[in-house]
Amino acid sequence: MCFSSDFKLGILGGGQLGKMLLNETRKLDIFTKVLDPSDSSPCKIGSNEFVKGDITDFKTVYEFGKSVDVLTFEIEKVNVQALKKLKSEGIGVYPPPEELELIQNKAVQKKFYLENDIPTSPFSLFANKRSLIEAVKNSEIDFPFVWKSTMFGYDGKGVCIVQKESDLEALTDGECIAEDLVSVKKELSMIVAKNPSGDFKAYPLVEMEFDKESNQVEYILCPARLDRALCDKARDIAIRVSQKMNIVGLLAIEMFQTQDDEILVNEVAPRPHNSGHYSIEGSYTSQFEQHLRAILDLPLGSTESKTPAVMVNIVGKEGHEGPVYYKGMTDILKIEGITPHIYGKKQTLPFRKMGHVTVVDTDIDRAKAKAEKIKDLLEVISI
Amino acid sequence: MCFSSDFKLGILGGGQLGKMLLNETRKLDIFTKVLDPSDSSPCKIGSNEFVKGDITDFKTVYEFGKSVDVLTFEIEKVNVQALKKLKSEGIGVYPPPEELELIQNKAVQKKFYLENDIPTSPFSLFANKRSLIEAVKNSEIDFPFVWKSTMFGYDGKGVCIVQKESDLEALTDGECIAEDLVSVKKELSMIVAKNPSGDFKAYPLVEMEFDKESNQVEYILCPARLDRALCDKARDIAIRVSQKMNIVGLLAIEMFQTQDDEILVNEVAPRPHNSGHYSIEGSYTSQFEQHLRAILDLPLGSTESKTPAVMVNIVGKEGHEGPVYYKGMTDILKIEGITPHIYGKKQTLPFRKMGHVTVVDTDIDRAKAKAEKIKDLLEVISI
Repeated sequence: MCFSSDFKLGILGGGQLGKMLLNETRKLDIFTKVLDPSDSSPCKIGSNEFVKGDITDFKTVYEFGKSVDVLTFEIEKVNVQALKKLKSEGIGVYPPPEELELIQNKAVQKKFYLENDIPTSPFSLFANKRSLIEAVKNSEIDFPFVWKSTMFGYDGKGVCIVQKESDLEALTDGECIAEDLVSVKKELSMIVAKNPSGDFKAYPLVEMEFDKESNQVEYILCPARLDRALCDKARDIAIRVSQKMNIVGLLAIEMFQTQDDEILVNEVAPRPHNSGHYSIEGSYTSQFEQHLRAILDLPLGSTESKTPAVMVNIVGKEGHEGPVYYKGMTDILKIEGITPHIYGKKQTLPFRKMGHVTVVDTDIDRAKAKAEKIKDLLEVISI
Repeated sequence: MCFSSDFKLGILGGGQLGKMLLNETRKLDIFTKVLDPSDSSPCKIGSNEFVKGDITDFKTVYEFGKSVDVLTFEIEKVNVQALKKLKSEGIGVYPPPEELELIQNKAVQKKFYLENDIPTSPFSLFANKRSLIEAVKNSEIDFPFVWKSTMFGYDGKGVCIVQKESDLEALTDGECIAEDLVSVKKELSMIVAKNPSGDFKAYPLVEMEFDKESNQVEYILCPARLDRALCDKARDIAIRVSQKMNIVGLLAIEMFQTQDDEILVNEVAPRPHNSGHYSIEGSYTSQFEQHLRAILDLPLGSTESKTPAVMVNIVGKEGHEGPVYYKGMTDILKIEGITPHIYGKKQTLPFRKMGHVTVVDTDIDRAKAKAEKIKDLLEVISI
């Protein structure tokens, strides 16, 4: 049993997702070891043991993994070969490394959707930037399109919309896909959880609103404001994705609702996800507790909501770089039903994710209005 | 500003209340220093700095206090003289040491109620055990009565019901009070919060059910199942107590509802309280976040409930002493809407408080039934 015992849970990555996971391991008194390259990682406090090291290095990850009973990760960019070897040697590795491998590469992920009859936007794969430019010149692909690096894009990095030829210059080299730019009415997300025994639970469908400039998620609304039939359609697709992938732990499925009310799967993440942060305050079981329950093969908790919730991401203000100051914090604390989460990064950068605020309210539109007010009042600056 | 900055919050005591408070300081990235005599204190993990030392020793507390900006405590048994000196030297000490002093001594507390026209059960004060025995022999007090040590009684310690002459033997020596044993219909509690700027918020009235044998709180029900008029009466009395005491931070006011539907104040605690643990899952603002908001002079949060909640305390089983094992944990996790909190004590003892479980449910009677099931299924044993 993993509570107040010799059992050790290893976590690769010590960022904000790890930090929120540690809040749950502390609550359940589960011994944790965290591996992260940075000494100022948010997980240095709250873990039972902190190990400084490179999570993409085979030897470092392997040796770290040998010292724990179950190993998980809070970021996809980890050494999968080490995870595979650890798994073959009997360490519990969740989510399974094979599934992580599938998800790490966006081209493999897209092919998986095609092979499994899961609706996704049409795309072409290119080995490098040169071949992409050639295809553009040969009119094989048209502007505008969505460029995605196949490896390790997240938080608006490794993804951009290419409107015209001159936009091509700024793209980094490497394997990439060019995706049809679908006309999106809404972006949606759903988080599901599965444990090794086969227990399965799905959270409500949520709505994601993006910041136009940074291409980052700005707001999450739970539940999504969507008619029932479309909601069911999206849920069915998300559940289909999770069934086809042999995930253990959490899987976040991001989807598009097109102008024609088609639902297309955009991409997935095999871990607690920004679109589930609202669950800490809004749900009967927070996604972080659920992730623990899942990877430790405990019964899964209820995914129902206590109240509607809206989450707003807090990012560094443009033009500010240096020691962080949260201007307007006292003002936002006057708004009823809000809970700030400050990740603990000491330095702010433009658009750096520094925290989030959850608003719970019996009325979702009122919650959204409060979230917008927070966005107006709170400035992440350097003074 | 106290977020992600050089600001330092000091906490005297590193037990479970401190641990739950640290969950909130982590969330808001407030730098913490904890002083506790035990190296295996639950707060060793989760605090930014942990200092081993005696919280009842003047010099230790004073020196610790000089290194922080604001000082608070999670247990009343601390050196008040050191707190007073620190306050006089400009350190923010909350709750104020003068109020703590009033509360630390139950005789002083009882006199305070009398002087301020706050209903409380009749009592007599005795300098020591000998004078108490004499008063019994002279028939100045009658059996049964409630014996209370004036200093540092809590969790059923320092309090007992004296039914007959032979019960007197077991009492420890020292200043004590003999209180009329009132016939109690229900025990109630209300938590209020105040910040230095004068912001004031009151949580709903809750119902406390005690374990007959250990005299410890077994269940907390929020809201109390009580008719409106009585509820208002109890709230008014609790608010009156908090107004008369110059508390900053939280104040928990424990009350009796007598068989005649009188409301009597039993005692108060100037800190997060067992009767408010439900608020972590049940309320818009958890009592621990509220305590931080209050002592840091931030706006107070909403004290409304998201859903009804019932908390059940998890204590060590009789006949078990040694390394702890939580038997039945997997079974209770199958119940919907429950959140376990394991405090992280490695050794169990009969009736030792090892954790609590919160049940949230739209129906309070169903929540209570689930809590009773948890009490049946979960055994804190040593194997």
